[in-house]
Amino acid sequence: MSHRSRLCAALIDMPPETYDATNQFWGAALDRVGVVEEQDPDYTVYGEVAPGVTFMVQKVDAPPRVHLDIETDDVEAEVKRLERLGATEIERHHSWVVMKDPAGTVFCVVTIQIKEAFEASATTWQ
Amino acid sequence: MSHRSRLCAALIDMPPETYDATNQFWGAALDRVGVVEEQDPDYTVYGEVAPGVTFMVQKVDAPPRVHLDIETDDVEAEVKRLERLGATEIERHHSWVVMKDPAGTVFCVVTIQIKEAFEASATTWQ
Repeated sequence: MSHRSRLCAALIDMPPETYDATNQFWGAALDRVGVVEEQDPDYTVYGEVAPGVTFMVQKVDAPPRVHLDIETDDVEAEVKRLERLGATEIERHHSWVVMKDPAGTVFCVVTIQIKEAFEASATTWQ
Repeated sequence: MSHRSRLCAALIDMPPETYDATNQFWGAALDRVGVVEEQDPDYTVYGEVAPGVTFMVQKVDAPPRVHLDIETDDVEAEVKRLERLGATEIERHHSWVVMKDPAGTVFCVVTIQIKEAFEASATTWQ
């Protein structure tokens, strides 16, 4: 069985008290209109800042930080692959997993977000 | 006078003690070979993970974090524009400026890194 994955997004995580100011700043900084996700209002999505990479601001109960997302057609297989490389699972949600790299940098493994870019450029893992 | 800018890179900042482990992990995670920059060996460059967005690991004397780079044809004008939006200058290097957004998230303003993507998609600021 093989699966595929690729880096697909950069997100700014922001606590509620500075969420609005952060969205105002980055929308203006990048000349983009943020769209609040209907399914999950804790995400403001700024679209693809380059083809295949989405920029978002996410409301979290944690200090501000930037994190990256890896999209995959098999979250379980990708989590296992990254664990073998030294990553650790932190938290599991219904469709995605929060992980940290060997030095503690947080990232997420998510389902396919940008179908065309995924089909065109994801790496296949045997 | 007008100038242009765009988001061009995502970088993982890493202290020396976990720099090698971080490079090993992310190279394998993204299926990419990191190249140490000749001009500045504190950067390991993994190329464009999507067209127009470079991924790098940078050696820093600070806790691990991810930061974003904005490239521009006029660093001074871009820094002033971002200051008007609420950002603050932290540190100035010979060709780039470290800034933080209104909530304290660190990012950098750099000279043009990916010429073709810059020409094709940078925003023009009047």
